[in-house]
Amino acid sequence: MTIKEKIEQANDIAVNHIIDANPVWVDILPAGEVVDGLEPNMILHSGPPIEYKDMVFLHKRGMVSGALFEGLAKTEAEAVAKLESGEIKISSALDHNTVGAGTGIITSSMAMIVIENKKTGVRAATFPAEGPFQGGLCGWGLYTEEIAANLRYMRDELFPVMRELVHKRGGLPIKPILAEGMQMGDENHTRQSAADLIFNTQILPDLFRMDIDKALLGKVMDYIVKTPRFFHCFGQGASQSALLSAKGTPYSTMAVAFGGNGVEFGIKIAGMGDEWFTAPAMMMKGRYTSSQYSEKDQLPWLGDSCVVECAGLGGIAAAASPIVCSLRGMKLRDAISLTREMYGICISKNRNYPIPNLDFDFLPCGIDIRKVVKTGISPEIHGGMFNRQGGLIGAGSARIPLQCFENALKAFAKNYRE
Amino acid sequence: MTIKEKIEQANDIAVNHIIDANPVWVDILPAGEVVDGLEPNMILHSGPPIEYKDMVFLHKRGMVSGALFEGLAKTEAEAVAKLESGEIKISSALDHNTVGAGTGIITSSMAMIVIENKKTGVRAATFPAEGPFQGGLCGWGLYTEEIAANLRYMRDELFPVMRELVHKRGGLPIKPILAEGMQMGDENHTRQSAADLIFNTQILPDLFRMDIDKALLGKVMDYIVKTPRFFHCFGQGASQSALLSAKGTPYSTMAVAFGGNGVEFGIKIAGMGDEWFTAPAMMMKGRYTSSQYSEKDQLPWLGDSCVVECAGLGGIAAAASPIVCSLRGMKLRDAISLTREMYGICISKNRNYPIPNLDFDFLPCGIDIRKVVKTGISPEIHGGMFNRQGGLIGAGSARIPLQCFENALKAFAKNYRE
Repeated sequence: MTIKEKIEQANDIAVNHIIDANPVWVDILPAGEVVDGLEPNMILHSGPPIEYKDMVFLHKRGMVSGALFEGLAKTEAEAVAKLESGEIKISSALDHNTVGAGTGIITSSMAMIVIENKKTGVRAATFPAEGPFQGGLCGWGLYTEEIAANLRYMRDELFPVMRELVHKRGGLPIKPILAEGMQMGDENHTRQSAADLIFNTQILPDLFRMDIDKALLGKVMDYIVKTPRFFHCFGQGASQSALLSAKGTPYSTMAVAFGGNGVEFGIKIAGMGDEWFTAPAMMMKGRYTSSQYSEKDQLPWLGDSCVVECAGLGGIAAAASPIVCSLRGMKLRDAISLTREMYGICISKNRNYPIPNLDFDFLPCGIDIRKVVKTGISPEIHGGMFNRQGGLIGAGSARIPLQCFENALKAFAKNYRE
Repeated sequence: MTIKEKIEQANDIAVNHIIDANPVWVDILPAGEVVDGLEPNMILHSGPPIEYKDMVFLHKRGMVSGALFEGLAKTEAEAVAKLESGEIKISSALDHNTVGAGTGIITSSMAMIVIENKKTGVRAATFPAEGPFQGGLCGWGLYTEEIAANLRYMRDELFPVMRELVHKRGGLPIKPILAEGMQMGDENHTRQSAADLIFNTQILPDLFRMDIDKALLGKVMDYIVKTPRFFHCFGQGASQSALLSAKGTPYSTMAVAFGGNGVEFGIKIAGMGDEWFTAPAMMMKGRYTSSQYSEKDQLPWLGDSCVVECAGLGGIAAAASPIVCSLRGMKLRDAISLTREMYGICISKNRNYPIPNLDFDFLPCGIDIRKVVKTGISPEIHGGMFNRQGGLIGAGSARIPLQCFENALKAFAKNYRE
């Protein structure tokens, strides 16, 4: 076999890990029990690895907040000292079986949604939506004692009920919800309005029938029903459990991780293990939530939620969601053209996702770094815009820097030549 | 003012009755209490008025079934005799403030969903979905003792709970659900998948908190969640309460009723009261549920559910739902072209319904019979295909016969000339 044939074969295996994945919500567990390699004195963050001193303000504050939340330090000063000295360890979420959505601050006692790819047994854990809580969200780079209390409340009061619920029903398959939502205007990154509703309709009757105090059940129900984009973390977990199954496929040039830390954006590819290929983090273009914001308030790309694009959803699925694309002033035809463009850099089509606006053609799936470099077409990724001081100030999209793919291809060539 | 100016002004008033309508689900009541002019010994049917002897088999059986259900006769033979003699009265549903969806058999003790247009106080009552019940449906022209028992069960057990629910919350606005569903692939005739889910998410938390036996609540929940197209009757009631508000606007050439009885299809217009303008009922084109069916099994148009097209949804909104249009082999561009074609016969656009696939242009609204006659473009209406023997055998669409509009225009000219 020529190297080219070996790559084709490997990419076929890798992309089928995405296409054939069967992600099922199976549990809610403390991060320390489900995230491989997450040590008690370790804090995770989004994007490629970075040292504390090089972090943007949001990550620095997130690290300190995580240290306080976890009881690794008693004061901010103590936390900073321990983070700088390495006594508190720092690690990239994407170097574990999880995803650093937003700032991606994850510590070992935080409760996580666990998605298992039943096809391979690979599990991925994702940080849950923080509820209809109005006090600001940890995932958006904010931190107060109130936010921490909300996280503890979710973990201690709401999640035991949801855990019993999901155990009782023997898991909840995620792919059918993603697929149905995709026919209803969701691209499953910026928008999961339909998926949220489908989830509610599947879960509430079971919740209702649980033999638990009605007032408590009511609180759990409110948490599920009233939290905006509740299903987002399930889609991320489903994507990550598929990509982790593909990771480590020798000779494969398929991307298996995307993420940014506000300084650098990085990718990984299936045939190169956990090696990162990075470039300076790009800015997002889109629409601000208020006219008070402009590009000077906006942080370069921060967050790993583009794991969903890596698995063929979100920006790759633009045609499914002209309503999301309109956030960037795109028309229906632009949204369709965008997904058609993505076919040019993908390995295959995903038969799980026939799209009405594509006349039921399937979504492109499995980004091949060779095709990206050859065509100069970079994957489109959707996301939320972060304020440099914390908080979400808009939604939009960006292209991943080509340099990431060029670096990856060079390293791949070097590795497989030897 | 010239007659033309009078018509323009009248049509502006009439179409704004549709656009500004505020339909709210307010109650569940026996048909006899909410349908004006429905006498205890009267049975309603879909489409324009027709005598018993001229009815298709489905309507004849429906009449007999209705007589037995209501206790107007003890045997089939007695029912037929009373229907033929006029002792049991027969009336067109669309000549009352209701809609004859499917066969449209409505008797005075049947429980109906009541929608009030809060803008005008006009109420419309629609026959509710018959649940996840597998024994065949009355609305589809079938009848057994089991079907009757299911109707009684709904009326006596499920509906008192739903009635208390809707009273407690002070009504449920229907238009926001239609509008949100319209952005999620529903055209709100053949498809209301999103609307069903939105309805569930709005209603279940309230249901859950009711102080009623949990087992009974569970049954009501199952009825709501598991019934396919549960929301359809709410959309029909919303449409009818708007159209009835427009009905009787002098000088208006806007259509306010569409319906078929399997023999004739008929329309009414706002400026001509309850006068019907008919033509032989047309056949629908679409897709059968099984290859065992062909056109010879199929009944010409039967049913009034096209009340939704009359109010600017369904086939008029094709662009919102390429997934429904694909049932007829249409592509996305055909669906968009169809709605664009409908602009040519409509009076206005409905700002309540911005459609992603139209780049957020609004849906056309208010069919002007003058424009239909002038352009030769007839409204596209979606619907279910009936087996001549009863039961639904497919879904598709048809154009309303031009002759209905030509007859209406002639009568209008004659009336307003005098």
